Amino acid sequence: MPARDRTQPFTRTIWWEGDGSDAAVVVIDQRRLPREATVARWGTVADAADGIRSMQVRGAPLIGVAAAHGIALAMRAEPEDAALDAACELLAATRPTAVNLRWALDRIAADLRGVAPGDRAVHARRLADATAEADVAACRRIGRAGLEVLRDVHERTGGPVQVLTHCNAGWLACVELGTALAPVYLACAERLPIHVWVSETRPRNQGAALTTWELGQGGVPHTLVVDNAAGHLLTTGQVDVVIVGADRIAANGDVANKVGTYLKALAARDVGVPFLVAAPASTFDPDCPNGAAIPIEERAEDEVLLVNGAPIAPEGTRARNWAFDVTPSRLVDGYLTDRGRVTAAELGPMLTGHRGA
Amino acid sequence: MPARDRTQPFTRTIWWEGDGSDAAVVVIDQRRLPREATVARWGTVADAADGIRSMQVRGAPLIGVAAAHGIALAMRAEPEDAALDAACELLAATRPTAVNLRWALDRIAADLRGVAPGDRAVHARRLADATAEADVAACRRIGRAGLEVLRDVHERTGGPVQVLTHCNAGWLACVELGTALAPVYLACAERLPIHVWVSETRPRNQGAALTTWELGQGGVPHTLVVDNAAGHLLTTGQVDVVIVGADRIAANGDVANKVGTYLKALAARDVGVPFLVAAPASTFDPDCPNGAAIPIEERAEDEVLLVNGAPIAPEGTRARNWAFDVTPSRLVDGYLTDRGRVTAAELGPMLTGHRGA
Repeated sequence: MPARDRTQPFTRTIWWEGDGSDAAVVVIDQRRLPREATVARWGTVADAADGIRSMQVRGAPLIGVAAAHGIALAMRAEPEDAALDAACELLAATRPTAVNLRWALDRIAADLRGVAPGDRAVHARRLADATAEADVAACRRIGRAGLEVLRDVHERTGGPVQVLTHCNAGWLACVELGTALAPVYLACAERLPIHVWVSETRPRNQGAALTTWELGQGGVPHTLVVDNAAGHLLTTGQVDVVIVGADRIAANGDVANKVGTYLKALAARDVGVPFLVAAPASTFDPDCPNGAAIPIEERAEDEVLLVNGAPIAPEGTRARNWAFDVTPSRLVDGYLTDRGRVTAAELGPMLTGHRGA
Repeated sequence: MPARDRTQPFTRTIWWEGDGSDAAVVVIDQRRLPREATVARWGTVADAADGIRSMQVRGAPLIGVAAAHGIALAMRAEPEDAALDAACELLAATRPTAVNLRWALDRIAADLRGVAPGDRAVHARRLADATAEADVAACRRIGRAGLEVLRDVHERTGGPVQVLTHCNAGWLACVELGTALAPVYLACAERLPIHVWVSETRPRNQGAALTTWELGQGGVPHTLVVDNAAGHLLTTGQVDVVIVGADRIAANGDVANKVGTYLKALAARDVGVPFLVAAPASTFDPDCPNGAAIPIEERAEDEVLLVNGAPIAPEGTRARNWAFDVTPSRLVDGYLTDRGRVTAAELGPMLTGHRGA
């Protein structure tokens, strides 16, 4: 990809700048959003590992793609087996709880070991590009599955389609398009009138900081609300469809996603508005029977107690900080996947064959 | 009341310091909470009006009591009819949308006009004290109605009673005890083990800033969570009862309260945990048939866009900011009132005779 025209807004998270031996991997440095939109350049696998570890890039799909680019940088510098093993170890250790990252690296390493060292640099770059394009293609299929729903709403109402989302499940978490926001971007591309309600997503405010920013880059009309406002929006007829992403989906369709998702699902059901979960097949976990079996990460209490570094509560106040909640499948009206739109009863095909495939 | 012992924590919002012609009304300056616990002293009706207008004191019950104290200060300085009328006008204009404030002032003025000017200073102070004590008594009756519920929980579980609340409906909004938190304080007084989950209550964070502080002053164990966490707490069995206050309750029992209340009511119902609304009779509005007839105030978008004065979203982001939502009566398991605990079907007695009484 040539150096991007910086007068254009960003709508992609990772790309190559230049060709050959001095090509660099460029990523949007998400740590600085929304205050500054700057990029970071990675010339070595160490740069890539630092970037993943320090959360220049985040979001499970993007982390996997970024690691593939890290391997390409490693093979360009030194294509022998020892260097390949070292690069995989280095990258896998950046986010030790990201199981998907380890799988992605294992697949790439197995593929590269079947290639002569002299050909590995070229092959590794092709693999990185293929990984990125596969993510874009999966998001595009998710987007098409949701686009049908948005078109139906517009045909019925004749007005702008009102979407409520939570957290950030957009292109900033992927390569392009995103998961929950993919239908929104495809709708915009075909000039379907649309407006997104962005829930701020305390405690880390990914909605306020990231989703607003990426929708702005994409030219999508949007409005920020506090998480508490979802019920009022829904009961007053200001939402046509709720679309969220997922961190893990159990075999019975229960969804672990950013804390607060379950409250939106309840309110959507109470007023009869469709609640949709957008996720690629890799998010479905056949080994997890239901939501009760999904471990819920608890994070540092300072994420609750401090906003922009300043305290919001009296000194000495204690807080608890669960990162996710579980939305039972009975509240999910549909799953937007890279294999189409399905109901909980139709989840079977999502649950086989995607690990290690 | 003598000058309070400052080594004791605060558990009351307003009191007299000294007697006779140089007595002052003392209030906790709530604008500085939770950073600083300081008091403001009012020596004149102008001080009282400034204090109410600038939100040194807040909460409908407390504003009414504070205004009665303002009239007492006015009558001490100048007891003639013209001064009485001027004081009422001054105080009523401090919070023009507070209908209860106007009613309270009308009642006090009518009472004082029946008293000779020479006796008005003494009578006005008695009225102010009676207004405060009536509020304390109402909160105590609300507390007793809820205490029965908490005792039942403890008898059933044998463990600490886990209460989830929203916003601030405690003694900081009243004179002592509060509404939603009155049962909690009475439970603590009789050493019932109890723990309160405090929802931070974006956008103004009254839970994080005020409820945590007042529970700390009262020595009540509590933990702060983000508003998004209510569902996870409820589905994982960490809440025995949800108790919230109310801004207005319609004739059919629908409740307007701080935005986000409806989401908690939905989650409580989904898991079968009692959802209780605590409010004095004056909160029940017989002229309002149902929740759809309650106007929902929309406030400045900067309350959403800025936290501690710093932006949380990209420059130019637009926000909407509804202060309340409506919880339908079908989700309310009981109303804790100064006339006992009632269901929606039993609301009749709350709906008559309290205005202008």
